[in-house]
Amino acid sequence: MSEAKQHKLTEEMKFVAKEENLEPEVIMKGIANGRIIIPRNIKRDFNPIGIGEGLRIKINANIGTSADVIDLDLEIRKAKIAEKYGADTIMDLSTGGDLDHIRKKIMEAIGVPLGTVPIYQAAIENVTNNKAIVDMSPDLMLNVIEKNAKDGVDFMTLHCGVIKNIMIHLKEHPRLMSMVSRGGTFLGAWILHNDKENPLFTNYDYLLDLAKEYDFSISLGDGLRPGTVLDSTDWAQLQELLIISDLVKRARKANVQVMVEGPGHVPIHEVQANVKIEKSLCDGAPFYVLGPLVTDIAPGYDHIVAAIGGALAGMAGADYLCYVTPSEHLGLPTEEKDVIEGVIASKIAAHAADLARRKTEIDWDKKMSEARAQLNWDAQFQLAIDPEKAIKYYNRNKTNQTDKIKACTMCGKYCALKILAKEFGDKIIEKTQCNF
Amino acid sequence: MSEAKQHKLTEEMKFVAKEENLEPEVIMKGIANGRIIIPRNIKRDFNPIGIGEGLRIKINANIGTSADVIDLDLEIRKAKIAEKYGADTIMDLSTGGDLDHIRKKIMEAIGVPLGTVPIYQAAIENVTNNKAIVDMSPDLMLNVIEKNAKDGVDFMTLHCGVIKNIMIHLKEHPRLMSMVSRGGTFLGAWILHNDKENPLFTNYDYLLDLAKEYDFSISLGDGLRPGTVLDSTDWAQLQELLIISDLVKRARKANVQVMVEGPGHVPIHEVQANVKIEKSLCDGAPFYVLGPLVTDIAPGYDHIVAAIGGALAGMAGADYLCYVTPSEHLGLPTEEKDVIEGVIASKIAAHAADLARRKTEIDWDKKMSEARAQLNWDAQFQLAIDPEKAIKYYNRNKTNQTDKIKACTMCGKYCALKILAKEFGDKIIEKTQCNF
Repeated sequence: MSEAKQHKLTEEMKFVAKEENLEPEVIMKGIANGRIIIPRNIKRDFNPIGIGEGLRIKINANIGTSADVIDLDLEIRKAKIAEKYGADTIMDLSTGGDLDHIRKKIMEAIGVPLGTVPIYQAAIENVTNNKAIVDMSPDLMLNVIEKNAKDGVDFMTLHCGVIKNIMIHLKEHPRLMSMVSRGGTFLGAWILHNDKENPLFTNYDYLLDLAKEYDFSISLGDGLRPGTVLDSTDWAQLQELLIISDLVKRARKANVQVMVEGPGHVPIHEVQANVKIEKSLCDGAPFYVLGPLVTDIAPGYDHIVAAIGGALAGMAGADYLCYVTPSEHLGLPTEEKDVIEGVIASKIAAHAADLARRKTEIDWDKKMSEARAQLNWDAQFQLAIDPEKAIKYYNRNKTNQTDKIKACTMCGKYCALKILAKEFGDKIIEKTQCNF
Repeated sequence: MSEAKQHKLTEEMKFVAKEENLEPEVIMKGIANGRIIIPRNIKRDFNPIGIGEGLRIKINANIGTSADVIDLDLEIRKAKIAEKYGADTIMDLSTGGDLDHIRKKIMEAIGVPLGTVPIYQAAIENVTNNKAIVDMSPDLMLNVIEKNAKDGVDFMTLHCGVIKNIMIHLKEHPRLMSMVSRGGTFLGAWILHNDKENPLFTNYDYLLDLAKEYDFSISLGDGLRPGTVLDSTDWAQLQELLIISDLVKRARKANVQVMVEGPGHVPIHEVQANVKIEKSLCDGAPFYVLGPLVTDIAPGYDHIVAAIGGALAGMAGADYLCYVTPSEHLGLPTEEKDVIEGVIASKIAAHAADLARRKTEIDWDKKMSEARAQLNWDAQFQLAIDPEKAIKYYNRNKTNQTDKIKACTMCGKYCALKILAKEFGDKIIEKTQCNF
C-alpha cells in the first residue's frame, strides 16, 4: 500500500492487472485508496491475487481440523481439491492437533493465499494447559498473531471490533442467537468475564505494525454477525460495523491492507442494504461475506442457500465470498465431496454476480452457448465449471440413439435446436444428422 | 373465475385461503381480477392450491419419458418423490411411449395439479405415423388439447404467442440460440414451413371455450424464451410477451384462468426487470418462471443456478418456479436423486423469496433458530427441509465426544453458543454439559 500511494507499480500489481484484464494503474490506484488488496505475506511466494472493487469476485474455502476430527492428510486433500476446483484462497481454521505443524503443511501444499483466525490457537493453547478460554492472557493473543505472521500467513481474521460496550448491550438486549462467530465469542466471553476491553482493540496499533512488517492483510472479523435471519441487520451487527469503519481508516493511514467481513444470515431483501452500508461506512473497503445465508431451514443444502445470498451480495458489490458446504450447521465437512460442492456453488454465485459487474465475464457463457447451439458436446464439457460431473451426467443418460444424433436424452430426436435449424436453413449443425 | 366475479365464495377458495393464512375474500378478489388462479380440471379431485399475488410461491417438477428413455414406473416414482419433497404441481412432459396411458397413470399417482404441453403429443403422433412434425394438421393440435382436457389435465402450456411475424423477424435477426422451447419450436417451425399463422393463436377463442368447459388453466408458454444469457430480454422475447399480454386480457374476459410463462436464461441484473415487465404488461397475471438460469457455465449444477435466479425472481414478484435438476442440459433426469435435488433447490429459492413477501413465512426460520440456540438436534432435524439428509450428515460426522456434549463436529467443545451462554448466565442450554 505504501508503494501504491507513492505511485510505484510493483510486479504484484502488474500480475494482478493482467489476470483481471485491467490497466496496472487501476490496480495501483485501488490499492492506494484501500479499495483493492493483494494479500501476500513477505515470507510467501505464489501468483498474487487481488480482491476488491472492479475485480472478479473471489471465493474462499475453509478447511481445518476440529477438536474431534484430526486428520492432517484429509485437510491437505481438502485444501488441494478446493484449489483445483477454483478456490482463490484457503483459510485454515484448525482447532485440533498441532496447529503450527498443520498450518505449515497446508501452506506448503497450496499455491494461493492462506488465511487464519489466530485467536483460535490462543484459546486452544489455554485449554490444552487446563486453563479456561476466558483466562487467555492478552500477551498470548498477540504472540499467536505474531507467530502466524512469522510463519507466513497472508491474511488474518482479527475480531478487533468486538468491544466491551457492544457486549454489555448484547447481554442487556439478547438476540435469538447471541453470537455464532467462534473467534468473536472467545473475545466476547473474555471481555465479559474479565470486565476489560478487547485486547485486539486496545492493541490495534501494535497489530498494524505487525501487519506492515510482514505485509499480511487484516480481515476485520464480524464477531457480532447474525446467526439467524431473525437477528439480521440489528443493533449489535451495525454497531460493530461502525467500530470497524474507524479501524479501516486507521489501517489505511498506517498503509496496512484491510478488508471487512460481513454476515452471515441475512434474509434476501436485506442483502443489498448490508453491502451498500459496508461500502458506504468503510469507504469501499473490500467486503468479504460469509454466505450470506438467506434462510435457516435447509441444513444439508446450505451451499445452495449461500449461493443465493452470495450472488445477490456480489451483484450489490461484495468482493469476496466465503464458501459454505452442505455440511454447515451439521458438522465438519469430512469428505472431499463436501468441499467440491461448496467451492462450485460459491463459484457459480461469484460468476453470476460478475456478469453484472464486469463486461468481459460473459465470454465464458458465450462460448458455452455457441457450443450448445452447435451441439458440440466436447466443447461443452471442456467449458463446464466441473467437466467431470457434466460428462458423468451425460454418459449416465445417453442412449445409442441420442449418441448417434448428437442430441441429449432430454429431447432426443425432438431437439428444438435441430428442428428449427432446418427451417432456418442453418449450416451450423450440418455435421449432425438431422432427421427433420 | 366466473364465480369469483359474482362474489361467490367456493369451497376451493376457502380451502386455499386457509392454507395461505388469508381471508377467503382475498382469494376471491384475486381470482376475480386474474391475479390468482386455482388450477383444477372439473374431472379431478384433490386439495386445491392457489398460485399468484400474495400467496406462497409454488414450485413445479417436470417429469416424463423421452423418445429414448421410456420407463413408466420410473416416471411414477419420480412424480411421487417430487410430491413427497414438496412439489406443488407436476408436469408430465412425456415424449415417448403411450402418452395417454402414461398421463393417466401419473395423474392417478399424485394428489397435486397435473400440467402438460399437448403440442408434444401432436408432434409425436405425426412422427409415429411417419409424417414430419411440420406437417401436423391444426385439427390434430386442437384434438390433442381437447383429449388432455377430457382426461383431466389441470393446466396446459399453450404457445399461443409464437406468431408468424415474430418467426419471420427471428429468421432475419438471428439470436445465438434461436429457440430452445421444444413446444414453441414445433409451432415456430410449422409456421415457417407452412407459411401460415400459429393455429393456437388463430383458434384462441376455441381454446378459451375448451378451458372454460373443463376448467383447466392456460399457461401461456414462452416459446421465444432465451436459451442463453446472451439472448435475454431481447426483441423476440419481449414481442412474444406483448402478444401474450393481449391473450391474458382475452382469457380474463372469457373467465378463463391464465398464467404467463417466463424465462429461461437471464443474467442476474436483468431478473427483476423481467418480472416487473411481465407484471406490468399482463396486469399482475401469475408469473411462472423456468429457473431463471443466471449463467450458462454450470451444467451438472443448474439446480443451483436456477435457485439463484428463482429466489431473485420470487423476490421481484414471480409466483411459481419450475424446478431445474442437475441433469438439465445434459439429459433426462433418470434418477430419483436428480428430482429430489431439483425440488429442494427450488423450494429453498421459493422460501427465501417468501421471506421477502409474506411476514408469516419467517416462523419456520424462527423455530429452526430456536432449536439451534438450544442445541436441540431432534427439533433441528424435524424442521429441516430434508430431515433425512440433515440426519445423514450429522451422523456421518459426529464423534462420541460431540455426541456427549450435544455439539457438532464443526466446533465441538469450542461451540460459540455454549461459551457465551455461560457468561450470559443463560439457562437456555443448561441441560447440555458446558465445560467452559
